Amino acid sequence: MKKLSVLIYLAALCLTASAQQVKPVKNVIVMIPDGTSIGVYSAARWYKIYNKLGQQLNIDPYFTGTVRTHSSNAPIGDSAPTTSAYMTGVLQKTGNVAIHPEADPEADLYPVDSTRTYQPAATILEASRIELGKATGLVVTCEFPHATPADCSAHYYNRGNYKALAPQIAYQNLDVMFGGGTGIVTDDIRQHFRNNGTTYLENDRDGLLNYKGKGKIWALFQDKAFPYDIDRNPDKLPSLSEMTEKALDVLSQNPKGFFLMVEGSQIDWAAHANDPASIITEYLAFDEAVGKVMDFAKKDGETAVIILSDHGNSGFTIGSSRCPGYDKLSIKQLFENVSNYKLSANGLEALLLKTKPENVRSEFKKYTNIDLTDEELETLYSSRNYKEGDYTKVGTSNNMVHNIVDILNAHTCFGFTTGGHTGEEVLLAAYHPQDNVPRGNLRNVDINRYLFQVSGLSTPLQELSDNIFAKHTEVFARTGYKIDKKDADFPVLRVTKNGKTLEVKAFSSVAKLNGKPFDVGSVVVYIDKNDTFYLPKKLAEKL
Amino acid sequence: MKKLSVLIYLAALCLTASAQQVKPVKNVIVMIPDGTSIGVYSAARWYKIYNKLGQQLNIDPYFTGTVRTHSSNAPIGDSAPTTSAYMTGVLQKTGNVAIHPEADPEADLYPVDSTRTYQPAATILEASRIELGKATGLVVTCEFPHATPADCSAHYYNRGNYKALAPQIAYQNLDVMFGGGTGIVTDDIRQHFRNNGTTYLENDRDGLLNYKGKGKIWALFQDKAFPYDIDRNPDKLPSLSEMTEKALDVLSQNPKGFFLMVEGSQIDWAAHANDPASIITEYLAFDEAVGKVMDFAKKDGETAVIILSDHGNSGFTIGSSRCPGYDKLSIKQLFENVSNYKLSANGLEALLLKTKPENVRSEFKKYTNIDLTDEELETLYSSRNYKEGDYTKVGTSNNMVHNIVDILNAHTCFGFTTGGHTGEEVLLAAYHPQDNVPRGNLRNVDINRYLFQVSGLSTPLQELSDNIFAKHTEVFARTGYKIDKKDADFPVLRVTKNGKTLEVKAFSSVAKLNGKPFDVGSVVVYIDKNDTFYLPKKLAEKL
Repeated sequence: MKKLSVLIYLAALCLTASAQQVKPVKNVIVMIPDGTSIGVYSAARWYKIYNKLGQQLNIDPYFTGTVRTHSSNAPIGDSAPTTSAYMTGVLQKTGNVAIHPEADPEADLYPVDSTRTYQPAATILEASRIELGKATGLVVTCEFPHATPADCSAHYYNRGNYKALAPQIAYQNLDVMFGGGTGIVTDDIRQHFRNNGTTYLENDRDGLLNYKGKGKIWALFQDKAFPYDIDRNPDKLPSLSEMTEKALDVLSQNPKGFFLMVEGSQIDWAAHANDPASIITEYLAFDEAVGKVMDFAKKDGETAVIILSDHGNSGFTIGSSRCPGYDKLSIKQLFENVSNYKLSANGLEALLLKTKPENVRSEFKKYTNIDLTDEELETLYSSRNYKEGDYTKVGTSNNMVHNIVDILNAHTCFGFTTGGHTGEEVLLAAYHPQDNVPRGNLRNVDINRYLFQVSGLSTPLQELSDNIFAKHTEVFARTGYKIDKKDADFPVLRVTKNGKTLEVKAFSSVAKLNGKPFDVGSVVVYIDKNDTFYLPKKLAEKL
Repeated sequence: MKKLSVLIYLAALCLTASAQQVKPVKNVIVMIPDGTSIGVYSAARWYKIYNKLGQQLNIDPYFTGTVRTHSSNAPIGDSAPTTSAYMTGVLQKTGNVAIHPEADPEADLYPVDSTRTYQPAATILEASRIELGKATGLVVTCEFPHATPADCSAHYYNRGNYKALAPQIAYQNLDVMFGGGTGIVTDDIRQHFRNNGTTYLENDRDGLLNYKGKGKIWALFQDKAFPYDIDRNPDKLPSLSEMTEKALDVLSQNPKGFFLMVEGSQIDWAAHANDPASIITEYLAFDEAVGKVMDFAKKDGETAVIILSDHGNSGFTIGSSRCPGYDKLSIKQLFENVSNYKLSANGLEALLLKTKPENVRSEFKKYTNIDLTDEELETLYSSRNYKEGDYTKVGTSNNMVHNIVDILNAHTCFGFTTGGHTGEEVLLAAYHPQDNVPRGNLRNVDINRYLFQVSGLSTPLQELSDNIFAKHTEVFARTGYKIDKKDADFPVLRVTKNGKTLEVKAFSSVAKLNGKPFDVGSVVVYIDKNDTFYLPKKLAEKL
């Protein structure tokens, strides 16, 4: 009889899988190699093989399909709307962070409901915490309010407005936030960390790696972003992989499970820069974190992982018309030079800008193994931002980093079509303990649906949004209210009724009733364009 | 009890799938969109959406991973060795068709056994026919001895030697060969078709589409290759999809099943030409065939399909640095112009070369909706191969097709890194009635292993190769033999013993014993480099 039960169980599993239903799991991890086109995976793999670092990438066994990344009104995606679509299921415009977009009927790829424009759209991270009590975490190497982490944990129509985004991320009461951006942390945020019991570490690698506590922890490094991994001093800055491991340690202590997003933030930036060694090594730093996550997930048995980029970038290819006969080159001929580049173009620039002209050649050789030609040397001297050089004589309009990139690329056979994003679908990789993984070509909003199901959520995200991001004009329609804009960046909504006063501050999750602070349970968003606070419906009950 | 059986069956299935074992099926179909990089799928999908032809590609539900395509000694693959690796499991050099390569120790990506150099490597097609008695078919739009179809059905170290490849394909006794290349068919091949009962049609679309016979059929069109699908006259030439449907009709009559390879041959060529409308429409013509194959496979229930390109090409991206602000363009702005291109650059060239100068502008407008500038018009007149123009005055060194491509691309925002192949992994799509599909990132040789298993083969391909492609010097080591090279292209091996004479002709499957022809069961390959015939071991028994 026992055998029969096992068979029935297996059959049930099998039927479940074939019906494309998704078994919810305790922990969900989303990993985003930002701006990673397919050629990056391939080049990183050949680089590993050439340098005898292994025959495959950690992500390799898990590829299951592709995903269309796009904005609400443009086939080519920007990081803000693309990860926002994964997180919220709402298509958005370039620059939008987890918010309903403006309609653009001439261009919208699917109909946009203009009655919802600017309403924040609840994210999987928010729903996991609010509905299911899961722990939440973000691990990145960009500054923490940059597009991708913000897409999970904040809302605004303009990704560049860190004043609006940074406090939301802090007031989201994350269990883990590891990344860059100490310079963005305000006194108010520091005070909030003290109030909500968050351990806050600044530029303290050892403090982070030795952290054994059970409470919330933020560890930030660098004024804004980390340097590229190829330029990183491992004694001072943790790797993405180290931060990811620590995040798993902390988050897995929550018996209700966790949601974690890990971003390889700067693969995108290296692609924008057309800097091949940085593209490859940034991806490999991300792939090391993939390895840690997969080890955890397989051991844990209750963890699902999806890994996907948010858009293509740069049209990076192994092979370029610049190199006649490139298609017959050996792995050594294709990957030896790039393997000798030991600093990014940015890292080289920082070094060379401080280097006397007579030493530029030897320094360049030291970090790239390239013997500069006289012409290349002249070009470096002539860089717009190189003060030692006689740039009035042979001046170019380029900063040195640009000239360095040109030299690095002249010694390799990689191609680029642009320094911007590209519109091809991105690779999807996935792991689920019962193998309920998404497959085929999916739309970005399908990824949201999958995350919703695998997380075990039941309240539709739009219903959650309507509950926690209701317009103040509707919530307090029958009550008097005033908007105090003394601090233009952080307006305060003041509602008075029956002798009670409710004060709700923009971009915070802490309001005051008769001067006494309380947690409203989610972040409050203020949109200047329609002078509207988006806040929990249930706040009306306070008065 | 019936219910229990079903459960046990399902559980067994489920266990099988999880153990990554592959259940063999009756019919195996390999579809190869030659030279198709990831951006081509994406652009073709957006093109369909923009032109209201549907929201997805027929391939979309079936993506399951990616495949590394490379030669034995170079990370960037050429069509000959890449499909050869899928078909034989043997890595090969650029130009090699289903043959053991020369060793290149400095560059070989995996060790190459130089004792086997030039030995033909048996293909999945050959093994399916010889070991399992399956029907075999090839459907392409290139000339039939072009690299990809040859990789399935012929052997030589140089893909360009059609004199060696074409007869092998004919003597392979295929059940179906639909494609281009009437000009390559020799009198000997025609005679063989009469001898082995093959219906041979030339430029007979209606004859093909109305064919109701059960026997072998070759239908060839055009002297060499088909025109691009965008230039095709549908009244005279069948589509790839029509040929595929007919191939399925014919092949599925074999009770032992079939092996079919369908190639979208010219996606690659359009990518080499950097001709965006041709790239997209060639892919869509292939995707239509994918739809027919998937309909068949799902209805049939005993058919597995895998679809994968053989290498990337051209670094095609949606988006290019040539178009400032391209990343915010709408679908209309990105896809309207290319949708107006109604001929390939080749097709336009053929038209305009016959067009008087005063009509070039209006003809160009008619087929592209582009109003040529005076400068563009001058460039066209000045094309090296345009006789009407005063090209001595404003001559360029380009043929007109090149200038046309430049103009077409100046009116779109697609990027290219090269006119050649690229080294990124390619997308893999797969269907299996029990969902035993390959997933993740695979090596090209893993595809061969999968095809071997799913076809139900049991004799290792190398063992088959050693049986049917043994050196004549070994098979007839103790017998006298002579090589007759009166016809330098088709040497004849002549072996005499005990008053019997065996005559074996290069690149044929018909030998003669005492002047009487008989089928040797596989093609005989002659390699001039080592003056060796590769032929069945069992031929020794004839004497």
